[in-house]
Amino acid sequence: MHHSRLACLAIDCQTDDLDREAAFWGAALGMAVRPRSPEEGEENYRDLEEAEGQPIVLLQKVTHPSRVHLDIEADDIEAEVKRLEALGAKRVAQVRTWWVMEAPSGHRFCVVKPQRADFPKGANSWP
Amino acid sequence: MHHSRLACLAIDCQTDDLDREAAFWGAALGMAVRPRSPEEGEENYRDLEEAEGQPIVLLQKVTHPSRVHLDIEADDIEAEVKRLEALGAKRVAQVRTWWVMEAPSGHRFCVVKPQRADFPKGANSWP
Repeated sequence: MHHSRLACLAIDCQTDDLDREAAFWGAALGMAVRPRSPEEGEENYRDLEEAEGQPIVLLQKVTHPSRVHLDIEADDIEAEVKRLEALGAKRVAQVRTWWVMEAPSGHRFCVVKPQRADFPKGANSWP
Repeated sequence: MHHSRLACLAIDCQTDDLDREAAFWGAALGMAVRPRSPEEGEENYRDLEEAEGQPIVLLQKVTHPSRVHLDIEADDIEAEVKRLEALGAKRVAQVRTWWVMEAPSGHRFCVVKPQRADFPKGANSWP
């Protein structure tokens, strides 16, 4: 048995100024921009402060064209990826701890480890 | 004074079978596909059943390339559009009751009338 749920809405920005994009989206959605700890690789991310129980909204600096993608958080990434493959999704690439996948609709999305402290509250259980 | 909050995550699909795409995304996210009443124009939409207080996830059949976009719900659309313009967003097109806008980051998003019955719970208040 494993669990998964919609975790994040990632605003991928092809930009030379991620802080400017984060400032807009934070103001637009009324969410404060939360700094990340300055670990390696984290400079390409900005988080917006989500209300309790709400999906995370984050910005990511990317080199591909700007888009929005969804992340699904799961306590067993391999089991979740296999479940999604059975539904018709395809593996695209493994990145650090997560998998980039492609839906039958053509949308890219990621399967990530649990992102919010209240996981697996409200998550789906899969046998 | 008006109010706004993140309302929807719209999965725009360039597809010849919106039911197939909705079936995938419903199963992927563990959300049932909820039919819409068969009013004119509604045939291009499918809603997923959101948990209480969570953003709506919907699918829309589109002719442009597939993408994901965000909707902001507001009780005064014109005031919200003006607020977002002041932040750097641009009006793209008015469609039925909503405005399509473009963020400085290049992402399209919409400003829509309140979509969920608990509005304006948790919404931002703007003077």
